[in-house]
Amino acid sequence: MSMLGLTIKKSEDFSEWYTQVVVKGDLIDYAPIKGFIVLKPYCYAIWEKIREIADKRFKETGHKNAFLPTLIPESLLSKEAEHFKGFQPEVFWVTHAGDRELGERLALRPTSETLAYEIFARWIRSYRDLPLKLNFWNTALRAEIKSTKPLIRNSEFLWQEGHTVHASMEEAEQECMLMLNIYREIIEEYLAIPVIAGYKSDKEKFVGALYTLTLEALMPDGKALQMGTSHNLGQNFSKAFNIKFLADDDKEYYAWQTSWGISWRLIGAMVMVHGDDKGLIIPPRVAPIQVVIVPIFYDKDREQVSAKAKSIYDMLSARFRVHLDDRDEYTPGYKFNEWELKGVPLRIELGSRDIREGKVTIARRDNSSKVKVNDDNTLTDYIESTLEDIQRNLYLRAKEFLDKHTFDAKSYEELKEYIESGFVRAYWCGSIECELKVKADVGADIRVIPFQEYRSSNNSNNSNNRCIYCNKEAYKLVYFAKAY
Amino acid sequence: MSMLGLTIKKSEDFSEWYTQVVVKGDLIDYAPIKGFIVLKPYCYAIWEKIREIADKRFKETGHKNAFLPTLIPESLLSKEAEHFKGFQPEVFWVTHAGDRELGERLALRPTSETLAYEIFARWIRSYRDLPLKLNFWNTALRAEIKSTKPLIRNSEFLWQEGHTVHASMEEAEQECMLMLNIYREIIEEYLAIPVIAGYKSDKEKFVGALYTLTLEALMPDGKALQMGTSHNLGQNFSKAFNIKFLADDDKEYYAWQTSWGISWRLIGAMVMVHGDDKGLIIPPRVAPIQVVIVPIFYDKDREQVSAKAKSIYDMLSARFRVHLDDRDEYTPGYKFNEWELKGVPLRIELGSRDIREGKVTIARRDNSSKVKVNDDNTLTDYIESTLEDIQRNLYLRAKEFLDKHTFDAKSYEELKEYIESGFVRAYWCGSIECELKVKADVGADIRVIPFQEYRSSNNSNNSNNRCIYCNKEAYKLVYFAKAY
Repeated sequence: MSMLGLTIKKSEDFSEWYTQVVVKGDLIDYAPIKGFIVLKPYCYAIWEKIREIADKRFKETGHKNAFLPTLIPESLLSKEAEHFKGFQPEVFWVTHAGDRELGERLALRPTSETLAYEIFARWIRSYRDLPLKLNFWNTALRAEIKSTKPLIRNSEFLWQEGHTVHASMEEAEQECMLMLNIYREIIEEYLAIPVIAGYKSDKEKFVGALYTLTLEALMPDGKALQMGTSHNLGQNFSKAFNIKFLADDDKEYYAWQTSWGISWRLIGAMVMVHGDDKGLIIPPRVAPIQVVIVPIFYDKDREQVSAKAKSIYDMLSARFRVHLDDRDEYTPGYKFNEWELKGVPLRIELGSRDIREGKVTIARRDNSSKVKVNDDNTLTDYIESTLEDIQRNLYLRAKEFLDKHTFDAKSYEELKEYIESGFVRAYWCGSIECELKVKADVGADIRVIPFQEYRSSNNSNNSNNRCIYCNKEAYKLVYFAKAY
Repeated sequence: MSMLGLTIKKSEDFSEWYTQVVVKGDLIDYAPIKGFIVLKPYCYAIWEKIREIADKRFKETGHKNAFLPTLIPESLLSKEAEHFKGFQPEVFWVTHAGDRELGERLALRPTSETLAYEIFARWIRSYRDLPLKLNFWNTALRAEIKSTKPLIRNSEFLWQEGHTVHASMEEAEQECMLMLNIYREIIEEYLAIPVIAGYKSDKEKFVGALYTLTLEALMPDGKALQMGTSHNLGQNFSKAFNIKFLADDDKEYYAWQTSWGISWRLIGAMVMVHGDDKGLIIPPRVAPIQVVIVPIFYDKDREQVSAKAKSIYDMLSARFRVHLDDRDEYTPGYKFNEWELKGVPLRIELGSRDIREGKVTIARRDNSSKVKVNDDNTLTDYIESTLEDIQRNLYLRAKEFLDKHTFDAKSYEELKEYIESGFVRAYWCGSIECELKVKADVGADIRVIPFQEYRSSNNSNNSNNRCIYCNKEAYKLVYFAKAY
């Protein structure tokens, strides 16, 4: 392995492996301010892919994009007291412009609820103005106090924030669930990461929300990662910001609202879940380069091999995102390592012997298999089906890991035993006291109260279930885990 | 005209007309901080269109997108002294995070040269790393001291900033010109605004650049507007930030750099140039809605007319951006005014009589003409060619205005006479003293030293040309104007 490669195994030191792979895999670099990162083009292309998929789904479901400024006056941010309290410790404050001190401090947007809703209050008069369904692609800025980790926890991150206003609670509930399902589709079908969907506990919900829906994934070190959240804000913000509408019964009501977001953290999760000791493995559907062609030539056959590689490149580019690596100054072995490090799903190798045989060699990144296949009009279909197979395989591998690392705890001792290894499913009485005590005791949170269990347990009359901590009657089966 | 319409004519009070049209045309709203605006979905959709066109051209010419943080440490921003001096009065400073005072003040990005180049210095080692051609879609933040105007001058604006690094001066020069030409293509062919291309004077160039190329347009009030700029930075920044590369002769050189940008100001220019007393006129190629269908029905024929309108909508949506306005609560007349205010290029009106005749009525926004055309398989082609005609017509109208308001001044008296009405072309000796005196005297700047005149005057031996101010020998024919 070249000097450029990873110097540590994923299983040896997961955290150090992650840091090496995001830097050496050409995804990120560190900015000159602690906690901030730069996205290199290769990583930004993955973000563009995620954005393209999400944006299409948002628009199909009637949302429109708009723009809000980065700065929020302090008076506005503090208008919903609980919300402000939640974000205040992380807020970056602008106090000066040039040499002039500002009359009021301006916050760098930690999230845009307050700014958006001050404006929505002016836009909404009657039921005809509803629903209002907007989305904003921007960055959020939150001064991280905890230790930071590239793409997972940074003081500025790329994300989207959706903000909708509705004429009824039912509509807000449906919207909240719809967006969670769209997130789930993006994460499972494109990033190949299985998730557990459900509610956050009151302690863990978004500050100011009625309830928060969440998608939780499991990382290889047994820690949970929150992948996307969708909040039903009820009328909490509409009352604070006076968002009222005249209904068709000629009466005025406070509106119902939702907000929801996903961020570049999804890329971090993708790296953690799929990567291996050779580097990144990027699922084909979001890979900036799906197929890399590496011609293997010597001085004598250079021209012939290059021409053939170029013709394969031309043929494949119509259907895939292909890169032809015809650099002279590096050996094929060097190139193999580099593209493996960067996680390109498929590599095509091509030498003069292959050309004589009418074959190309195809190497899969996910399982390191190599096959020779015919270089004829079946090649394109072969590549297409192989890319699909890689996509599926990555998901199934991750799903198997998730299933194997989800444990049912019948006792608090079992919870403590399993909690280092993954999700622990257990009954909970619903009290914040038990939740806080488990947190203090074993460092684990309630990550998600899953829909299925939530519903069945709510409907059941079975009161044999007992809280894992206090042993009192419990209706909710929840997922505990340590978390990023 | 409804209350929603404009209450002032473009010719009466251009500034007030502009303010009304951007607000009532549903483009922008004011944010709660002075100088900041919100883009409503209709305006953001225009920005998305411009971004899509530009992004495609950037990628075709070998540029890649990436991400840089919003915050720049003061020490970095001040590293190129002249550059810092230029931006310092406009910089927003972050001094606190939560309750903690920061060790060093952080600037909100007024532009990213300093941050990008600090990072590029780490990425570039040898000629193999060059050229490096990156682009960033983000916002710039500059506390405006002068009076602000929506989309034209705001304290935060959406833009893109390109930053490239090259192994030779020639390559940087070519890049700088290439990007200006791409901007010109976007502005003339998509936004239908004619521009004068050329150099900025040394006084007006970007702070820290060797030279700045610019595109200047003329607004209806006779003022010039800078539409896009492309800077050849030479080695000014590479020396300040130590960006060196090992060339193939095994020697180390400082790199050559460019930077270039366009912003949402282009939308402001589009509004000013094309709009009329009824509201916006959006060129078809960037219009979020190219065709609006307004069915005209009464209770008795509602079903028939609605069904027909829907079938036309379905047919046209395959090729155009179409909106069907089938709202019950507004009259056709109200709808006509609203879509005229919002500048939709074509309107299709459809009543039961039209259906009987097998016709639809098509109203053009640019010249208010109305024609009945056959509602058959020729309709799509008719609309396509009409949209093209509108696009062309808008450009030609603007070009005619530009030509009629470009004056040649043979004397300083003539310059003073014409300067309120548009561009004044005159010879200039090249001294900053004359430039400053004209500015102090009549409030006009040298907006652009056009390429053609620049070249021909540089090559000519004709020394009969005299500076419009000092009457000394002059080689450069320049465009003076008052400006936004």
